[in-house]
Amino acid sequence: MSTLVVVRHGQSSGNERNEFTGWRDEPLTRLGLEESRLAGMMLGDRGLRFDKAFSSNLSRAVETCRIILSETNDTPVTPMRSDALNERDYGELTGLNKDDAREKWGPDLVRLWRRSYLVPPPGGESIRDTSARVLPFIICEVLPALLRGKSVLLVSHGNTMRTICHVIEKLSIEQMLALEIPTAMPTIYRLTHDLSVIEKAILSREER
Amino acid sequence: MSTLVVVRHGQSSGNERNEFTGWRDEPLTRLGLEESRLAGMMLGDRGLRFDKAFSSNLSRAVETCRIILSETNDTPVTPMRSDALNERDYGELTGLNKDDAREKWGPDLVRLWRRSYLVPPPGGESIRDTSARVLPFIICEVLPALLRGKSVLLVSHGNTMRTICHVIEKLSIEQMLALEIPTAMPTIYRLTHDLSVIEKAILSREER
Repeated sequence: MSTLVVVRHGQSSGNERNEFTGWRDEPLTRLGLEESRLAGMMLGDRGLRFDKAFSSNLSRAVETCRIILSETNDTPVTPMRSDALNERDYGELTGLNKDDAREKWGPDLVRLWRRSYLVPPPGGESIRDTSARVLPFIICEVLPALLRGKSVLLVSHGNTMRTICHVIEKLSIEQMLALEIPTAMPTIYRLTHDLSVIEKAILSREER
Repeated sequence: MSTLVVVRHGQSSGNERNEFTGWRDEPLTRLGLEESRLAGMMLGDRGLRFDKAFSSNLSRAVETCRIILSETNDTPVTPMRSDALNERDYGELTGLNKDDAREKWGPDLVRLWRRSYLVPPPGGESIRDTSARVLPFIICEVLPALLRGKSVLLVSHGNTMRTICHVIEKLSIEQMLALEIPTAMPTIYRLTHDLSVIEKAILSREER
């Protein structure tokens, strides 16, 4: 059996301003730092120690990953970073406040870009495009670590995590699109040697 | 250790006419039937018996799969068919002879559509789009069978197989795009429990 913990980064300054952040490299806010520390403490309280960690190349995920590891691990682990785990590229929406975007393009178009599987925002990635970027990395790097029985931490982004939960939980595309993933609340999967999920737990700050 | 055999279907009538076949459902030619039988015999000669088989929903792959299994297996296996393993959708190129397509759109554009990762032909799928369709199925259905130590046959299509070889062999995107996959020549992978390839063999008709 192996353990996979997936976590969306803590609140970033882009999240705080209610923006489409995408590939823009925004730091964690004070709340985001605190959320990340709490996530690490909750994982540490459960006795989780990580053999292997992955994050995107964006600071908000790199930082969240570092903070969680500092709360869980006595022995250091150097996370593997990859652009493959970066958030969806929001193209022309990047850096725009979500209300401003709705004003500019209309709420229907913005909803379509946010929640359609196939339709990308102008100059950006669809969720399908994101999936095609993320899944080869999952197959080539993350699954082999899990299959060697490692305890794995993966810190990533809202849409990236959708595409990961899609395959780990064998969700339909509609189920994946309906997922709402809060910042810095870890999901713990216990997996068998054939990648079946035998246990799933979401650690909520409210319950701490 | 487990065994994965991937095979592109035998020659179809679309291949014979040098067409972009894509999602058009073309049958195997007499040569395609013969190639498929030979592929099955070569696999059978090596002692291969399949516990599990997968094919696309297109007749040329369904038929090739059936013929191979009839040559290898004494005990019947019902293949799992899925649209996820169908060939790339060639959109407006579908059913066009490749020379006619080059005449209509120019050789550079047709080469771009055939060999670019990102650019789809009009109304069709890019190789990235194909990858996003294929890989969830590989993770959710094919890998679990392999990880349970099953001997797996997968019969599919040229571009679909590119996206599969990409992740099984951990190729770069450029290496994947450069792959030329002949009809009905099986590739045999021996995989460890963490999905490392420890042996790869391509069975060539010429060597038989």
